[in-house]
Amino acid sequence: MVSKDRIQLAHGGGGQLTVELIERVILPAIGSSSAGGLTDSAVLKLDAGEIAFTTDSFVVRPLEFPGSDIGKLAVCGTVNDLAVAGAIPKVLSLALVIAEGFEIDKLKRILTSLGETARAAGVSVVTGDTKVVGSDACDGLMINTAGIGSMHPAAELGFDRIVPGDEIVLSGPLGEHGMAVMSQREGLSFSAELESDCAAIHELTVGLLEALGSDVKFMRDPTRGGLAATLVEVADSAGYDMEINEAAIPINRTARATAEMLGLDLLTAANEGKLVAVVAGGAGERAVEILSAFDIAADAAVIGKVGQQAENALVELVTTVGGRRVLQMPYGEQLPRIC
Amino acid sequence: MVSKDRIQLAHGGGGQLTVELIERVILPAIGSSSAGGLTDSAVLKLDAGEIAFTTDSFVVRPLEFPGSDIGKLAVCGTVNDLAVAGAIPKVLSLALVIAEGFEIDKLKRILTSLGETARAAGVSVVTGDTKVVGSDACDGLMINTAGIGSMHPAAELGFDRIVPGDEIVLSGPLGEHGMAVMSQREGLSFSAELESDCAAIHELTVGLLEALGSDVKFMRDPTRGGLAATLVEVADSAGYDMEINEAAIPINRTARATAEMLGLDLLTAANEGKLVAVVAGGAGERAVEILSAFDIAADAAVIGKVGQQAENALVELVTTVGGRRVLQMPYGEQLPRIC
Repeated sequence: MVSKDRIQLAHGGGGQLTVELIERVILPAIGSSSAGGLTDSAVLKLDAGEIAFTTDSFVVRPLEFPGSDIGKLAVCGTVNDLAVAGAIPKVLSLALVIAEGFEIDKLKRILTSLGETARAAGVSVVTGDTKVVGSDACDGLMINTAGIGSMHPAAELGFDRIVPGDEIVLSGPLGEHGMAVMSQREGLSFSAELESDCAAIHELTVGLLEALGSDVKFMRDPTRGGLAATLVEVADSAGYDMEINEAAIPINRTARATAEMLGLDLLTAANEGKLVAVVAGGAGERAVEILSAFDIAADAAVIGKVGQQAENALVELVTTVGGRRVLQMPYGEQLPRIC
Repeated sequence: MVSKDRIQLAHGGGGQLTVELIERVILPAIGSSSAGGLTDSAVLKLDAGEIAFTTDSFVVRPLEFPGSDIGKLAVCGTVNDLAVAGAIPKVLSLALVIAEGFEIDKLKRILTSLGETARAAGVSVVTGDTKVVGSDACDGLMINTAGIGSMHPAAELGFDRIVPGDEIVLSGPLGEHGMAVMSQREGLSFSAELESDCAAIHELTVGLLEALGSDVKFMRDPTRGGLAATLVEVADSAGYDMEINEAAIPINRTARATAEMLGLDLLTAANEGKLVAVVAGGAGERAVEILSAFDIAADAAVIGKVGQQAENALVELVTTVGGRRVLQMPYGEQLPRIC
């Protein structure tokens, strides 16, 4: 007997059941009357000028974890990719791959979270797609969002704008997302108060652009691969060494304890609501002031600076005890399915 | 021992191996230097005016089938959604979810096909994302593409533009995609010559718009759910009955034989390179003339017309023997994972 509470293969057939799933479950949950509606494309009028376009698939396990869930993550991840490109996020697409047998109540819960996050971030879900696959072909739910934003007129970003003396700003402590997901997976009870930092950061990026204009040289959200991957990539692409002061990096003590317990490095752990910005020399403290006015960036700090040109540019970490360590691009998978 | 010929979980970690996968496998295969590159968002300057935005996830099995593969399909599906919205397709995003253990050679083959199809359709893959999951969590490869197109200035499409007397045009025979995939799955050797119709149809839609302008009222590509789902949706949304002449529907004899063998109905089978257009009364023959100049629409035909207003609008099929049958929206899943 087919349960009415679970997704059936037939929900993905493009027929009556697909229409019902979209109209009775998906659209009400995300609070939209248009997404994935009865036409497959959305027609939009954007402001004239440049746009940013991005995509991300989300495969995080578990689907719900302290402080967030895959629905909220699917909005924040794509909003943040647009934000760090210097864009104001405008619209999202939503593509669901759902396993046969998935609980419809859980789907509603996740999509309600997704819809609330989108509204709070000022983005509309305007087009969608729904596929259903056998329970052996997908473990539950995968979500893809693509997004379009309008480029902020003050944005003038790029590796090529970075020069020696620029300052590196980080909006808050590292690894909260990675450690919240891992402690949920491992059932670590001492980490109960640790929540993912999952958040939309476009107010941070817009705040910086409006106050500092072209003094903002480069922005990135350090997700998979963490701060280390972001900084190594920037140093490598810009062609300048960097020096990071470990003592200046904001700390979440629970995240640090979790990382030590699990033998993980917070510098390579995933974040989902943090911003790394490279700003002109002398603009670092002003950037920190702007960022720390926002709750999600209360602990923002200048953590380092751009050094000299180098053929094989390195990121050096000056440790709290005064040692020096070269940060490496993480090789492979520290935390599978973290986003 | 980890094989170098297969995808490892670590390829999805956002570190060195992810960069290598993108730079050595994905970008060369699709023939692009930008997609999924080292920035997560693409910044684009589109022509002023309205845009269309769409997304589709592709979960077809098998991944390669007569006449096409999931890579070609992932381009055509999204290009076609933009085309039938009245847009000229411009850019695509590409998000891959790959299972651990997937053959890298097969990935290259599929992405090469994807890149060739994109170039032929005049669209650029401008941004991307790559995730790797355990082999128990995804059976091989799933692809999401989102797309942006510029609205054609002559496009004036919508259910609300349909009126009694409008003519319904179909660009070619039904069910070639659905039957090619099914015969591959079932190992039907007599269907060896049957190929998926998978193709980009934007030249058809642009051709119609340029020649007929506002006489083109509505366009749709009849994919999942087939011609029946498309026509029932149009009749229902427009609020007019429709009459379809079965004898006028173009036929592929191998597809028909396959459907009969498998007990399937070509009217509800998936197509991936066909166009249904509703055009003004009297413009049908001109539409057929325009379409049939293209190889992929050589058998285009006027297959029916829009009837009177009705509270519960019906699509009636006048059968080849003169009977009348009401077409229904397929209820659920006739052919799972067909796209």
